[in-house]
Amino acid sequence: MTAQNTQVLLARRPQGVPVPDDFEIVESAIPEPAAGQFLARTIYLSLDPYMRGRMNAERSYAEPVPIGGVMEGGTVSRVETSNHPDYPPGSYVVGRTGWQEYALSDGTGVRRINPEDAPLSTALGVLGMPGMTAYTGLLNIGQPKAGETLVVAAASGAVGSAVGQIGKIKGCRVIGIAGGSEKCRYVTEELGFDACLDHRDPDFEAELAAACPDGIDIYFENVAGHVLRAVIPHFNFFARMPVCGLIAQYNMTEPEEGVDHLPSLMRAILTYRLTLRGFIVRDFADQHGDFMRDVGQWIRDGKIKYREHRIAGLENAPASLIGMLRGDNFGKMVVEVSPDPTAA
Amino acid sequence: MTAQNTQVLLARRPQGVPVPDDFEIVESAIPEPAAGQFLARTIYLSLDPYMRGRMNAERSYAEPVPIGGVMEGGTVSRVETSNHPDYPPGSYVVGRTGWQEYALSDGTGVRRINPEDAPLSTALGVLGMPGMTAYTGLLNIGQPKAGETLVVAAASGAVGSAVGQIGKIKGCRVIGIAGGSEKCRYVTEELGFDACLDHRDPDFEAELAAACPDGIDIYFENVAGHVLRAVIPHFNFFARMPVCGLIAQYNMTEPEEGVDHLPSLMRAILTYRLTLRGFIVRDFADQHGDFMRDVGQWIRDGKIKYREHRIAGLENAPASLIGMLRGDNFGKMVVEVSPDPTAA
Repeated sequence: MTAQNTQVLLARRPQGVPVPDDFEIVESAIPEPAAGQFLARTIYLSLDPYMRGRMNAERSYAEPVPIGGVMEGGTVSRVETSNHPDYPPGSYVVGRTGWQEYALSDGTGVRRINPEDAPLSTALGVLGMPGMTAYTGLLNIGQPKAGETLVVAAASGAVGSAVGQIGKIKGCRVIGIAGGSEKCRYVTEELGFDACLDHRDPDFEAELAAACPDGIDIYFENVAGHVLRAVIPHFNFFARMPVCGLIAQYNMTEPEEGVDHLPSLMRAILTYRLTLRGFIVRDFADQHGDFMRDVGQWIRDGKIKYREHRIAGLENAPASLIGMLRGDNFGKMVVEVSPDPTAA
Repeated sequence: MTAQNTQVLLARRPQGVPVPDDFEIVESAIPEPAAGQFLARTIYLSLDPYMRGRMNAERSYAEPVPIGGVMEGGTVSRVETSNHPDYPPGSYVVGRTGWQEYALSDGTGVRRINPEDAPLSTALGVLGMPGMTAYTGLLNIGQPKAGETLVVAAASGAVGSAVGQIGKIKGCRVIGIAGGSEKCRYVTEELGFDACLDHRDPDFEAELAAACPDGIDIYFENVAGHVLRAVIPHFNFFARMPVCGLIAQYNMTEPEEGVDHLPSLMRAILTYRLTLRGFIVRDFADQHGDFMRDVGQWIRDGKIKYREHRIAGLENAPASLIGMLRGDNFGKMVVEVSPDPTAA
């Protein structure tokens, strides 16, 4: 076998905004599965904002990727050769085998998927981690009630687009926030949000106030930065804020000088008796069955739509992650690592 | 009747730190109770940090005191004359009749108290609003578990002292934070906290880190400011922060220039999946019976102690509130408005 395994390694820890040299692309021999293992060939690699955090050395909810280690990531793969009875050759799996074309697995953290249920790549998006993040964070922490106002940051992204559509299903008035008029048009015209505001607009703060005449009951936080600051004055009593992501500050290396905005958030928390809660998807792992049942049904009913931003070739993953962190993507970022035999 | 009713009015809205001229002391005729009303004579007036917020014009969880209105406040009073069958003359009530010697009431928001159960003034402290704030905020939001580390701001105050002692009853390791060595000594030696740190100490941040070698599971927030900033780096996964008060920022008029500390709090919320929740005591009004039963028992068992800071004379209330906002008080602030017939 002359084929090689292409891998993307973390070459060094980024200082602020990552650059291509923070990654290294290497070729290595394709490994052989031992007893109880199988060899998976990556078809799709998911790119997600949390990956920026894994590149740092700091203590977090997950271990950092070591220098020289394969970048972490969710994947959909095809089992090529197998010494594991549950994963026969030709079966498809979703797992966390990282930024590489081939990987060994003993089945830990892996789940088989049926390509007849839905396109394979949805297991990385609306029917995968981002979709379940949206579903569990909104329902458990946001606790949407009919007639409430839900504001969703990063509304055209993999998580935000699902949050807003689930909010509509639950009867909320849903206001999206996105970067640029094209994304905003998609969010209202395709996804059916009641409004979407461009946070790059100079009048963004005034537009947000105008779009939320009854205040904000739920703010689904994916972003932080100036979007959060614009939201703070509009909370209603007992509003909830699921804290899912903070993409605007992931590349920050130094505390920002200027005005200290912490007191205004604390004042809002006390005065309006807000609940803020950070979470990651695995905090609600026991709700996976509910998620698959509900969101699967909503997709079949046409109530939830999704959009993918496809990138061809694993070698383009580093530049695509860098671009995602400044908002260049439009939809769920999926890297096409090898051909999808099930694609139409 | 030549006696007059002494009242303290809000003369104008303070700019930042309140000054004596923001208040006006007036004499007026003692009112006569109409049908269904009674006349109450104030024995004790409670002074509490939340009063600073009522002096501002901003929308909050309660209406501001109007200019020229009687300052709001909790009181213990004796019924003097009565046209209300439930409140006969000579009975004692706790209510919110404000900064005045005499007040009419139709019984709304008033509760009778039995002076044989406990000293009357405790109905404003450990068995009143501050005690119930401590009890409900810690148990509902803090959710203390044996072996966890609880950090309590304003630990010698009316709320903080009860929070820490309830935390000890629940099996927590309890670290207090207070202003000055005398308060800290009281918190450890009298109240039985495991440690107490002086936030005015130049080494406060290092002392806090040393006192919390296993991190912080619950931070009961009464203060904000530099105390909150020192706490943020030490949260454990799934830590909880009941947000009860923000005394360090109540006199702020302008956003502070300098470093923006909002991103570091948001990062902690996401990374450690914190829950922050603001509350006021009436959010848990249905737990009043549980509170009276439990805390009453704990006081009788000697497990909860309390300390009052007594001020003689209603005319001294403005200066005492101003002093409380800079931490001059040591214990629950109680103004002696008229003689307590039940006092030993």
